[in-house]
Amino acid sequence: MFIEPKILKGFRDSLPSAEIEKRGLIEKIETLFRSFGFVPIDTPALEYAEILLGKGGGETEKQVYRFTDNGGRDVALRFDLTVPFARFVAEHRVPMPFKRYHIAKVWRGENAQRGRYREFTQCDFDVIGVDNAGGDFEILLMIDSALKALGVGDATIRVNHRGLFNQFLTRLGVQEKSGEVLHLVDKLAKVGRGAVLEGLTKTVGGAAEKILDFIESKGRFEDVLAKITEMAGEKATVHAERLALLHKFMKDAEASASLVLDPSITRGLDYYTGVVYETFLNGLPEIGSVCSGGRYDDLAGLYSKEGVSGVGASVGLDRLIAAQEALGKPRTQSSYVHVVVACMDEAMFGVYQNAARKFRDAGVNCEVLLKKTDKLAKQYILAEKKGAAWMVVYNGGVFTLRNLKTRENKSFQSAEEAVKAVLSGGVERELRKNDAFS
Amino acid sequence: MFIEPKILKGFRDSLPSAEIEKRGLIEKIETLFRSFGFVPIDTPALEYAEILLGKGGGETEKQVYRFTDNGGRDVALRFDLTVPFARFVAEHRVPMPFKRYHIAKVWRGENAQRGRYREFTQCDFDVIGVDNAGGDFEILLMIDSALKALGVGDATIRVNHRGLFNQFLTRLGVQEKSGEVLHLVDKLAKVGRGAVLEGLTKTVGGAAEKILDFIESKGRFEDVLAKITEMAGEKATVHAERLALLHKFMKDAEASASLVLDPSITRGLDYYTGVVYETFLNGLPEIGSVCSGGRYDDLAGLYSKEGVSGVGASVGLDRLIAAQEALGKPRTQSSYVHVVVACMDEAMFGVYQNAARKFRDAGVNCEVLLKKTDKLAKQYILAEKKGAAWMVVYNGGVFTLRNLKTRENKSFQSAEEAVKAVLSGGVERELRKNDAFS
Repeated sequence: MFIEPKILKGFRDSLPSAEIEKRGLIEKIETLFRSFGFVPIDTPALEYAEILLGKGGGETEKQVYRFTDNGGRDVALRFDLTVPFARFVAEHRVPMPFKRYHIAKVWRGENAQRGRYREFTQCDFDVIGVDNAGGDFEILLMIDSALKALGVGDATIRVNHRGLFNQFLTRLGVQEKSGEVLHLVDKLAKVGRGAVLEGLTKTVGGAAEKILDFIESKGRFEDVLAKITEMAGEKATVHAERLALLHKFMKDAEASASLVLDPSITRGLDYYTGVVYETFLNGLPEIGSVCSGGRYDDLAGLYSKEGVSGVGASVGLDRLIAAQEALGKPRTQSSYVHVVVACMDEAMFGVYQNAARKFRDAGVNCEVLLKKTDKLAKQYILAEKKGAAWMVVYNGGVFTLRNLKTRENKSFQSAEEAVKAVLSGGVERELRKNDAFS
Repeated sequence: MFIEPKILKGFRDSLPSAEIEKRGLIEKIETLFRSFGFVPIDTPALEYAEILLGKGGGETEKQVYRFTDNGGRDVALRFDLTVPFARFVAEHRVPMPFKRYHIAKVWRGENAQRGRYREFTQCDFDVIGVDNAGGDFEILLMIDSALKALGVGDATIRVNHRGLFNQFLTRLGVQEKSGEVLHLVDKLAKVGRGAVLEGLTKTVGGAAEKILDFIESKGRFEDVLAKITEMAGEKATVHAERLALLHKFMKDAEASASLVLDPSITRGLDYYTGVVYETFLNGLPEIGSVCSGGRYDDLAGLYSKEGVSGVGASVGLDRLIAAQEALGKPRTQSSYVHVVVACMDEAMFGVYQNAARKFRDAGVNCEVLLKKTDKLAKQYILAEKKGAAWMVVYNGGVFTLRNLKTRENKSFQSAEEAVKAVLSGGVERELRKNDAFS
């Protein structure tokens, strides 16, 4: 019996170098989330289809992996982390305000175009149970800090306010068309002005030009805010004040992010009701928003009588990885190892591992090679490929430490002395990441 | 429309305190894997059913979540990490020997008994592409080190050799019944001597007593080894030598684990061919093996023409968590936060976050509270619940730092001075884990 080893379309394996890169990014993001006081949660990959698709239908339903389990239950794989979070909040009494992050896989049977996978990792972070500018601002600051931590260069965070936009549509008398208008407006960057104008004219007739004037407002934050507030009328004042506060907080916090008020940002999804965010890398705007989100005010509404207001965003991990590659950051790390112990005699693995343990106990990652080679040089080459900085060769009671970069050897009477020499040579986990030993 | 927020039977949410505990264990295990030079990989949750069930059928098939996707493909959720690894190895050219770890969820539609979940996390680590005592020993040492790193107290690692056992069965002339015999023997601890003897007698007649004598051998490693080697006959010598080397390496490496040669350990699974391991906590043997594995010599055989020998084990994360609770280790950590900034005025979030950023930049996790309270004391209580050690109250240009344990306050003219005071007070991420501030 032979089975061809194939993988499903739209799915992929993660080889060590890719997985090390991905984990590196996730660890940085997670450290950041924790530093803001956010706590992790997890939910099942599989849920009742009714729970996941309650609001859904349409586009979502077509993409979902849905089936009947062995117990006859109608189940589905989660397609995002927001719907399970809503169910989670309705089911558990969490202390409010509640700041949570959730980094996990989701599945969508989308057409597997370039860069679109059917299995991908989402990194969501939300504050729920409070509706004020402090919450909106915290998410904004976290987006800014996350991009800094990931070292992807300068970025521009574009914000807008869905409530203000809706107020404007109400004033124009086209509020009942808001869903269609939002969908059309959301495509501005993709399909261009002409196509949006055509679509809008079909939908709202003469109001189309005014809507375009609104969403195309450009300039300083204060100026755009003044213009769209005036267009939206008096009832929009409360939303305008929220945006003004956000802008003020950025300055007070000495945040360096470039914050732009862009009325064309609407985030197609229906559930946003307040501030919305999209984030573009200045060096690579064409890959689209790498971190998006916004405020919603009825998170758990489907599963609970109490509406819960919240604000959050999601880091586009796969886009950021693609960005790092496009920006020419090479994926160099092939392991986490600092020191490699050579294999000279297969009867000596106990001694090799004893020496290796002394490195590990000192925080130095140390691998014992498991195969003898005809020439020791082959083991040097292998160690270098792994990205190690040093090699230990044990022979006749002597530990020889080889600096794989300078090719200098130094001998010691004990493993402890070799560990000391490596430590004084400044090996630290972080150093390797900085390519000091690459 | 209202949907009852319910979760599938055998599945569960992970609330922050449980998730923080779990991530803490995973981070320790992962640090250990990396320190041995192991690299991470990942594979899809969903694969062709043919790939996952190729060898399977029977018990496995009944438990698998299998369905037809929207493209008409026969697919299934992975039920372990070994089968996907075999497919991975057949599909990718990885440098051998290859040392990998894989920490990921798997799904089995098992009867949801006590402690049995349908979704759980596996932590697998394997060395493939080399068949020597050095590989067997490395896995043994990693089991020992992992349990030390997790702080679950003393453990006993029980080993045996499937090749030696099979040689013994061959000598008895019952080798064609080895599958049934292995299944029966594997149940010794669970069902007792009588039931096993009865089953064996039905299967192999008069050989039953001899098999029981073999598997019940007890005593010093050397003595048990001498006895079972003699029982298995001359052809078992090579396997006996492998076990003797393992024992020697443990001494050479000054490993402290209690290593027992236990011929009743067979690991029911068919694919093991060499050394097998099970690990029991001395303080809690009744929960069963918390880390098991062994050597197999045809990992990718189903998907490739080349047989690949390997050895590995799997850490039973859920059992270890249950063990920590049973051993009375309280789950105390409710967040990662060290310092909390009070909310005195909702117009000041920019200033609060600016101060918080200075703590974060110094490696101190700092959360800004988002809601004013009628009394400040309520915010102290909230900060304590989060497990924070300090609170910062900003008022009229002055930063007051409150030690939440001693309830002492100290005032500073700048956030930087408050950061310095906290750092000199020795706040470190690790300290909280040691309950220094609980």
